[in-house]
Amino acid sequence: MYKKFNFCLLLFLGGSLSLQAQQNTSTKVEALIGKMTLEEKVGQMAQITLDVIGKGNDRFTSAEPFSLDKQAMEKALLKYKLGSVLNTSNNRARTPAVWFDIISQIQKTAMKNKGIPVIYGIDAIHGETYTAGATMFPQQIGQPASFNRQLVHRAAEITAYETRASSIPWAFSPLLDLGADPRFPRQWESFGEDPYLIAQMGVQAVKGLEGEHNDVGNPIRVASSVKHFLGYQVPISGKDRTPAFISDQALREYHLPPFKAAIDAGAKTIMVNSGLINGVPVHANPKILTDLLKKELGFKGLVVTDWGDIENLYQRDRVAKDNKEAVMIAINAGIDMSMVAYNYEPFCDDLVALVKEGKVSMERIDDAVRRILTLKFELNLFEKPVTNPKDYPEFGSKAFEDAAYQAAAESLTLLKNKDQVLPLKAGTKILVTGPNANSMRTLNGAWTYSWQGEKVEEFATAYHTILKAMQDKAGKENVTYVPGVSYKMDGKYFEEYEDQLDAAVAAAANVDVIVLCLGENSYTETPGNLSDLYISELQTKLATRLAATGKKIVLVLNEGRPRVISKFEPQMAAVLQTYLPGNFGGIAIADVLFGKVNPSGRLPYTYPQFPNALFTYYHKPSESRSTTEGVYNYDADYNPQYVFGQGMSYTTFAYSPIKLSSEVLKANEKLTVSVEVTNTGKVAGKESVLLFSSDLVATLISPDAKRLRGFDKIELQPGETKTVIFQLSPQDLSFAQADGKIITEAGEFSLQIGNQKVNFNYVP
Amino acid sequence: MYKKFNFCLLLFLGGSLSLQAQQNTSTKVEALIGKMTLEEKVGQMAQITLDVIGKGNDRFTSAEPFSLDKQAMEKALLKYKLGSVLNTSNNRARTPAVWFDIISQIQKTAMKNKGIPVIYGIDAIHGETYTAGATMFPQQIGQPASFNRQLVHRAAEITAYETRASSIPWAFSPLLDLGADPRFPRQWESFGEDPYLIAQMGVQAVKGLEGEHNDVGNPIRVASSVKHFLGYQVPISGKDRTPAFISDQALREYHLPPFKAAIDAGAKTIMVNSGLINGVPVHANPKILTDLLKKELGFKGLVVTDWGDIENLYQRDRVAKDNKEAVMIAINAGIDMSMVAYNYEPFCDDLVALVKEGKVSMERIDDAVRRILTLKFELNLFEKPVTNPKDYPEFGSKAFEDAAYQAAAESLTLLKNKDQVLPLKAGTKILVTGPNANSMRTLNGAWTYSWQGEKVEEFATAYHTILKAMQDKAGKENVTYVPGVSYKMDGKYFEEYEDQLDAAVAAAANVDVIVLCLGENSYTETPGNLSDLYISELQTKLATRLAATGKKIVLVLNEGRPRVISKFEPQMAAVLQTYLPGNFGGIAIADVLFGKVNPSGRLPYTYPQFPNALFTYYHKPSESRSTTEGVYNYDADYNPQYVFGQGMSYTTFAYSPIKLSSEVLKANEKLTVSVEVTNTGKVAGKESVLLFSSDLVATLISPDAKRLRGFDKIELQPGETKTVIFQLSPQDLSFAQADGKIITEAGEFSLQIGNQKVNFNYVP
Repeated sequence: MYKKFNFCLLLFLGGSLSLQAQQNTSTKVEALIGKMTLEEKVGQMAQITLDVIGKGNDRFTSAEPFSLDKQAMEKALLKYKLGSVLNTSNNRARTPAVWFDIISQIQKTAMKNKGIPVIYGIDAIHGETYTAGATMFPQQIGQPASFNRQLVHRAAEITAYETRASSIPWAFSPLLDLGADPRFPRQWESFGEDPYLIAQMGVQAVKGLEGEHNDVGNPIRVASSVKHFLGYQVPISGKDRTPAFISDQALREYHLPPFKAAIDAGAKTIMVNSGLINGVPVHANPKILTDLLKKELGFKGLVVTDWGDIENLYQRDRVAKDNKEAVMIAINAGIDMSMVAYNYEPFCDDLVALVKEGKVSMERIDDAVRRILTLKFELNLFEKPVTNPKDYPEFGSKAFEDAAYQAAAESLTLLKNKDQVLPLKAGTKILVTGPNANSMRTLNGAWTYSWQGEKVEEFATAYHTILKAMQDKAGKENVTYVPGVSYKMDGKYFEEYEDQLDAAVAAAANVDVIVLCLGENSYTETPGNLSDLYISELQTKLATRLAATGKKIVLVLNEGRPRVISKFEPQMAAVLQTYLPGNFGGIAIADVLFGKVNPSGRLPYTYPQFPNALFTYYHKPSESRSTTEGVYNYDADYNPQYVFGQGMSYTTFAYSPIKLSSEVLKANEKLTVSVEVTNTGKVAGKESVLLFSSDLVATLISPDAKRLRGFDKIELQPGETKTVIFQLSPQDLSFAQADGKIITEAGEFSLQIGNQKVNFNYVP
Repeated sequence: MYKKFNFCLLLFLGGSLSLQAQQNTSTKVEALIGKMTLEEKVGQMAQITLDVIGKGNDRFTSAEPFSLDKQAMEKALLKYKLGSVLNTSNNRARTPAVWFDIISQIQKTAMKNKGIPVIYGIDAIHGETYTAGATMFPQQIGQPASFNRQLVHRAAEITAYETRASSIPWAFSPLLDLGADPRFPRQWESFGEDPYLIAQMGVQAVKGLEGEHNDVGNPIRVASSVKHFLGYQVPISGKDRTPAFISDQALREYHLPPFKAAIDAGAKTIMVNSGLINGVPVHANPKILTDLLKKELGFKGLVVTDWGDIENLYQRDRVAKDNKEAVMIAINAGIDMSMVAYNYEPFCDDLVALVKEGKVSMERIDDAVRRILTLKFELNLFEKPVTNPKDYPEFGSKAFEDAAYQAAAESLTLLKNKDQVLPLKAGTKILVTGPNANSMRTLNGAWTYSWQGEKVEEFATAYHTILKAMQDKAGKENVTYVPGVSYKMDGKYFEEYEDQLDAAVAAAANVDVIVLCLGENSYTETPGNLSDLYISELQTKLATRLAATGKKIVLVLNEGRPRVISKFEPQMAAVLQTYLPGNFGGIAIADVLFGKVNPSGRLPYTYPQFPNALFTYYHKPSESRSTTEGVYNYDADYNPQYVFGQGMSYTTFAYSPIKLSSEVLKANEKLTVSVEVTNTGKVAGKESVLLFSSDLVATLISPDAKRLRGFDKIELQPGETKTVIFQLSPQDLSFAQADGKIITEAGEFSLQIGNQKVNFNYVP
């Protein structure tokens, strides 16, 4: 099926963008720029949200059913000549047919002005968020848990296809922030805490969206928007869009590599971090946006703000005294397009005035407009401003759904399995309980049919909750369901109530096993901020009371970030982390619980045991040192609940000693590292093989405890052995010095794969 | 009494160190250095702990009663010619007589070598920690709560006197770290979270210890050791001695000013941060120790490591491959003296070898030795190597105790007083309960007679716990005591057990008011790390069950850091924060509860409401913004339990509108800011008047919400009015730019005093 699907896509595949094509584009862009007025150029740099041009009482909402307001649209697209529209209206998914209609009208209007089409952008986060019937994959945090590059590539490829099937050529994805803070309300939108894993999966996502050769003119590809440049997910307080401290060293060691990899992979656009680094709003920082991104990394694409972030420079951060100064600062810092969202007139009027006053140069404007128009030409929008759903027969197909199921199944991560309580045997009497047991919303999370995910139940009726999937699998007669606790569906994400809690506890008496589905309701961004990382008090109460019954409990976690469960984890027999597995998560979970699927996920982050004990696996040695000598003996408190890379299988794997091609690695050479892995259990299974390295001594910068340098996923039948081979170059062992320069130092290194360890020397 | 005490001290006061005296010292130092061998110089740079030269089975402990081991002492002081000894033996306080005996013997031995005395150093933290009978003040965190500079000065002055009375001339105090992280196990050793408050109180402490003119040769003065340079208390994880990220901007805006103020005030020595900043161990960082501290700030004194920190460079942080490389890195970075603690031989042998190999220059060695010997001359140790307890009749006197009581009384901070439940009326029936109700250990905290404070009960029998003071005040017949919860006194600080919890709840039935004494047991440094900022589960249980009785509860907090109490705070009628008030805290608390003392403390930090919602009051606007327009409305989560500066009185104060000398401040001028404060209540009271400023717009750096720029403490009789005057210069309104440069920008500023607010413009 996978092959068939690929074949199908191949029919669309063009070649890479030739130098000739690039020159042709450049010629067209320059010719067009030469004909444009200042007002037209500035208009290209503004992006509004759809509600602004929808019929309705105000700019912030539209009447339903949605229709465009001709007058508002003409003002925006013809008078102000705006270059881009984003988002859906009324925060609600639309059918492909509706999208085709809306965007056709927009383009028809926009192109009255010198034939320049609008570029429409959308938050296609785990599939095309705002299209009814689109295929919903696991959210990003689950995808790296599979440690399977192909699954990530395929998810992006299908998302691109379905976004184009919705007439939209630009996806605000992937998110390549370092997901190193479990408090952060968007950790689940990341590929986890590890820079290498993020970079590897990020490249797959960019290539899946844009095509192997970034041939985004191919109408099954979209422009990606790598986000949020840079250091977005590590604010001091853990709250969205607040200040972070990041050293130059950490910026280059941890935060930059995924973005650099995506840029090297040709990503067309980049969205900017809405927060502040070292006191400075990133949208105001020319060192990051121009010196680092455009000059040093050589990024030639489009730099777009996040929502309202130029206004934030004066309204929120107070680094500008008014809108005009904010626009000046941001555009001069290197912003090409402002996601103004609502109030586009002041942006345009102020920017025109700033150019006339000489406070923003025409060169800067032309640079921005050149990037915008180049992308529009590359997307072939001048020739084909709207793609038509009828050309996308695979939209929402079985083949696509199977890919989403497969991605979900390989992401599920078995963290504990005492006395092999899992897999469940046929005929087992089961109590299914917990607020996440019967919810499509919680399986999907936010960015699903709406921003905060509150409309999922309305759109996802065709798919199976955990409960439904368990009933199908085990037989309805074997499954009792009592929620115990439920989420307040019209409230804040953290609002819950007791929902037959006593009945849930009573029901435990009549079953063999409890499947307890806990976690979080859907959220993202600031509404998803938390103040207490413990899982909720009500869920703790439910778990504690169920544990007191003495029945075996299988804890199924369905959550955007690792909520602390240490108050009752010791009483759980098994723990399965499902992240936010999407519309096919329910079936995948049931398949794992009953052993149809052998789990093979591994945690892409460190799962904390306490709210004030947050670490990454690549912490410094001082954070996990053991007791020292004397009376004044210090030891550390490195105490995660589960470590990065943790994940069990229903079979067992044995690792041979690691073989090295040499005991010494020299400059410009490669070290071949190989290990044999054998399935020593009784069932077939997939194994993610992870290679870590440790630098034993480094100059000035205390070296990380260990770092992921390679991974591969293999499938083994019982008794089968495969050899996994990694190639390490000196660059793979490098680190950022205090000044940010990347070097590899001579000296001893340690490698670890599974339970195996070996040392070697780098002698350049 | 205060005057009398000052008069008494004045008898000892010498003049300031004249230029002539400085030149004389310099001549002597250079002459001595000229005669010293390399080995002698290196020996001066090493400091060992007393146990190393005590009789006993090993280096880490000594036999009791303590006696010096002649052979070990001669090896250390004559063969290796070590320059310094620190600490007590067996982690136990000694009487002044014992100290005199020990240090006399040490000096007698040491001075056999060219007459060079040892410099003995001690952790005199809130009084002379390791001297039995010394006067124990509130720990540092309580002192700034008084907002009374004189009390801080007096505490330091008395500590210096009693340290010299213990024959010791060097105190490792004050701590001027930014106490901005409530998770940190030493926040209570700081002056709180505000840079200005720390700087103001830090200067008082340095002057109190060293004298107005730093005339430390005066035998009632000691050398201070300002610590821990720099940025020690803000590690990412909140754990002691772990990595921090600090931008150049934050370093200069928040962390540096207190140290700069102390250096400008003449502080003689500085101790270095044991942690890592931006990946680099501070003990290995020449940019901080040499470029910033010695060159830019012009620090001429002695730079000493913290405990074992050179060994940490290879054993813990792995920035050196062995001890020798670690010594090279640290000494070349700017360390003058290594608090080796135990294994001094490798330090000395390696450093001698490094100089011979040219890896450490003789200039660097001479610079270090010059700083050490200069201090020894300034302390007059060559002439008078040991001070004698018999010359210190005021040691432990009533006058000193009164000063400690006064400091405690003014630190107590009333955070809540619903329906004026306080002050308690005579004859009220009271239940005193909680693990902190009957403990001298918890009133004092760590660094009291031992490192972790576990020996307090043995040494503090003469002083009053809260319970004892309440019984004395209210009459035994009116006070019932049941602990409810108790600390495990031989366990870790966080180990507790139920101690008649049911009985405590039952006892509530028979009283009018419950005085519930909660908090923490004593701890410091790594053993004091926490993983969960909530106050303990058992204490929460006790509070919750007592609240369920419906009786009015006065919550008395006795804790080193603000443990989260939000689970039961709404049920408390009154909340009194007592910090760690020392040996006279019990009486001071009873006096406040019964209204003999009108409380006047204000919080020197922000008290958090949740474990993952930690902010400082000078957070950025993005951390407390209100809801924005549109559907995608973001608001922030700034939700402290109590704000910085919060503190109530039994009377009320009214503030007049703020008067400014001008609406415009010009360069090189000063703005006079005045406000009239009236006691509008019925009892006399003291009021801390705090002046905050806000910069409304700043270039690039998002300005802080507000910043403390001045404070004064006044006392007012009922109906009385006083005018409080502040002078603001443009420098007082400055901020550090992204590159760390300090500027004051033209523009509008806001000032706030009490509930009054006024704006003005700075026009340079």
